[in-house]
Amino acid sequence: MTFDRITARAGTWQTKWASAERVMGPPGPDALPMWIADMDFDVAPVIAEAAQRLSTSGMLGYFTGADALSESVAAWMTSRHGWEADPDHVSHTHGLGNGIALCLQAFSEPGDAVIIFSPVYHEFAMKIRRNEREVRESPLLVAGDGRFALDLDRLEQSLTGTERIMLISSPHNPAGRIWTPEEQRAMADFCARHDLILLSDEIHHDLVFPGERHVPMPVAAPDSLDRLVMLTAASKTFNIAGCRTGSITIADETLRARFRKVLHALDIQPNIYGVELTRAAYTPEGAAWCDELCAYLAENARRFSEGVAAIPGLSAMPMQSTYLAWVDFSPLGMSWEEVRRRIVEEARLGPSPGPSFGTGGDCAMRFNLGTQRIRIDEAVSRLQDAFADVQ
Amino acid sequence: MTFDRITARAGTWQTKWASAERVMGPPGPDALPMWIADMDFDVAPVIAEAAQRLSTSGMLGYFTGADALSESVAAWMTSRHGWEADPDHVSHTHGLGNGIALCLQAFSEPGDAVIIFSPVYHEFAMKIRRNEREVRESPLLVAGDGRFALDLDRLEQSLTGTERIMLISSPHNPAGRIWTPEEQRAMADFCARHDLILLSDEIHHDLVFPGERHVPMPVAAPDSLDRLVMLTAASKTFNIAGCRTGSITIADETLRARFRKVLHALDIQPNIYGVELTRAAYTPEGAAWCDELCAYLAENARRFSEGVAAIPGLSAMPMQSTYLAWVDFSPLGMSWEEVRRRIVEEARLGPSPGPSFGTGGDCAMRFNLGTQRIRIDEAVSRLQDAFADVQ
Repeated sequence: MTFDRITARAGTWQTKWASAERVMGPPGPDALPMWIADMDFDVAPVIAEAAQRLSTSGMLGYFTGADALSESVAAWMTSRHGWEADPDHVSHTHGLGNGIALCLQAFSEPGDAVIIFSPVYHEFAMKIRRNEREVRESPLLVAGDGRFALDLDRLEQSLTGTERIMLISSPHNPAGRIWTPEEQRAMADFCARHDLILLSDEIHHDLVFPGERHVPMPVAAPDSLDRLVMLTAASKTFNIAGCRTGSITIADETLRARFRKVLHALDIQPNIYGVELTRAAYTPEGAAWCDELCAYLAENARRFSEGVAAIPGLSAMPMQSTYLAWVDFSPLGMSWEEVRRRIVEEARLGPSPGPSFGTGGDCAMRFNLGTQRIRIDEAVSRLQDAFADVQ
Repeated sequence: MTFDRITARAGTWQTKWASAERVMGPPGPDALPMWIADMDFDVAPVIAEAAQRLSTSGMLGYFTGADALSESVAAWMTSRHGWEADPDHVSHTHGLGNGIALCLQAFSEPGDAVIIFSPVYHEFAMKIRRNEREVRESPLLVAGDGRFALDLDRLEQSLTGTERIMLISSPHNPAGRIWTPEEQRAMADFCARHDLILLSDEIHHDLVFPGERHVPMPVAAPDSLDRLVMLTAASKTFNIAGCRTGSITIADETLRARFRKVLHALDIQPNIYGVELTRAAYTPEGAAWCDELCAYLAENARRFSEGVAAIPGLSAMPMQSTYLAWVDFSPLGMSWEEVRRRIVEEARLGPSPGPSFGTGGDCAMRFNLGTQRIRIDEAVSRLQDAFADVQ
């Protein structure tokens, strides 16, 4: 219900609207940005209330909330995901982008290679390169059901011996593919065989559509605990990425010590709003809001998919979770520039350009469906118009 | 006025009260913690209002505030400190502790030495060691006026050639010594002579007592700009350390690029509350609140100093800024254990133990005077009782 309410995002400093120019040139009043992973929804009431409570407390100095946050994270993982995380295994970072970077520094050296499954969240490759590690892409297949599938055999053949880490997006961004427990075990086994640290970025794990089920890596592959680093956050689900708070959970004592050495050397501790708002999210009220959100996003995805399928030759990849739809335009046989021109200049939509997601994204776009349904319908209608000449 | 109002800090998660046990054992209802640099004052109304505004906006996702924060920082440095900082030279870190650590990583290698003037904020040495650099202490003298003074000649003789950085606290923590422009130039010249990067941590620069004047390093020693890194924050002045936001300003292009490479590799970006609350602090309303605060702290320092001076043999170091008083108890000829027992167990006060501040702190205590005046009077009275037998 409340998700249908149009919120005034244009003219604010929310990146999706304020910096839409980055993906669609100077945005006029007709611009519909659909890029960066921010939803056009106000935060959940339970979060707004926690923020207001903290803001009226007058107390924003040094605080002792890190342990409470760890307890909250562990309790959420247990109740929501069936993963009995130990609060003592949880560390807190300045968001998950920072968390991934810290892991790269803790578990590899410059020149080492990091495996990622492309197309994938473009920041993976950027962070790897910025830390002077090498990107080892394992291109995903598109299976008969139209979904991404792993190609571990080909990956195995491409290894050079410098690989130290496998970094996965689970559920996968883009397209919200939920890796089955079998697939997760295959990834974990691969890591064991090649002595790799497994970084499982499960930042979207709460955004699972009704009827679908995501199993966290430590539950799917308990044998992987000696090499597993779990990355989680409330930021994406609850639209509080501006608070820059993420959690890294490591069961293995030696790995945890290596990670915390890097973390403490840099004096990274959670901020007071990040702690309080994450704790507010990880409550029964937060869970109920999340359930409503997932149902709303699933229906958005259904309508978007239906609308795209009405364009001859096109289909959105079937989604199981997230609000990050993926459409490959290559079946149209147009150049990337032409595809982009139609979507951005004609339809005035601002999705994320696929090429930045690596191999497999060269003629694709990622559409952010975390918005009011009326905007989804509008986007679909504009897409259909922009490709109306396609037979 | 408003600073006199007792705020309920006991029972909250503010570290000074919640973790008082760390410095004074299990705290009973009579405990008066005077350690960590947090003031027992509510945040300024202009900050509380900004926090409430943001909390009711519903928008806490990715945001574009970093540039606005840089503008705000630069404007404050110009209007408040006469230092015309260029917004393009400002970067933002996850607090200044994180900022110092990033500087250590950007400007030195493991095994290099970092010069600090002791006794000094204990986190300086801890951060240096956690980053596997070496601490090169330059013990401060106590001059005829009872204040700290530099001993650069002795420092010069102690150099081994591995020194890469000089890290100063300006104004100095503890005791709020304001380094004169001449002293600052001497430090800058020393750095030029020995090719050191100069990190000037000016986090307390706004907490200057009426009649005193702090000159920022780039104004005192403009020749130092090719090796100068300025560290500033609203966190201490405005009691918002929980928001973990600090600024690093570097005029030199090469140094700035080195720093930002480390910053970006770690994906450190400011959080939304840190940005908004710092911007709220750096306004005319924030400046007026700061003026009132400084006058209040100066009177607290005067009364504390007067009270300590009434104990034969003792004196608080004369303060020019900050709320971090320094008392050397060694003139009493008692052991550290006895001094500590009387202050902590008899007087039930919880100051910061001097030995953690390095050489020169072995029998001293740092008292946090950022509290209601009635508590200052109470602390003085308890100290006088605890040392009543001293002749």
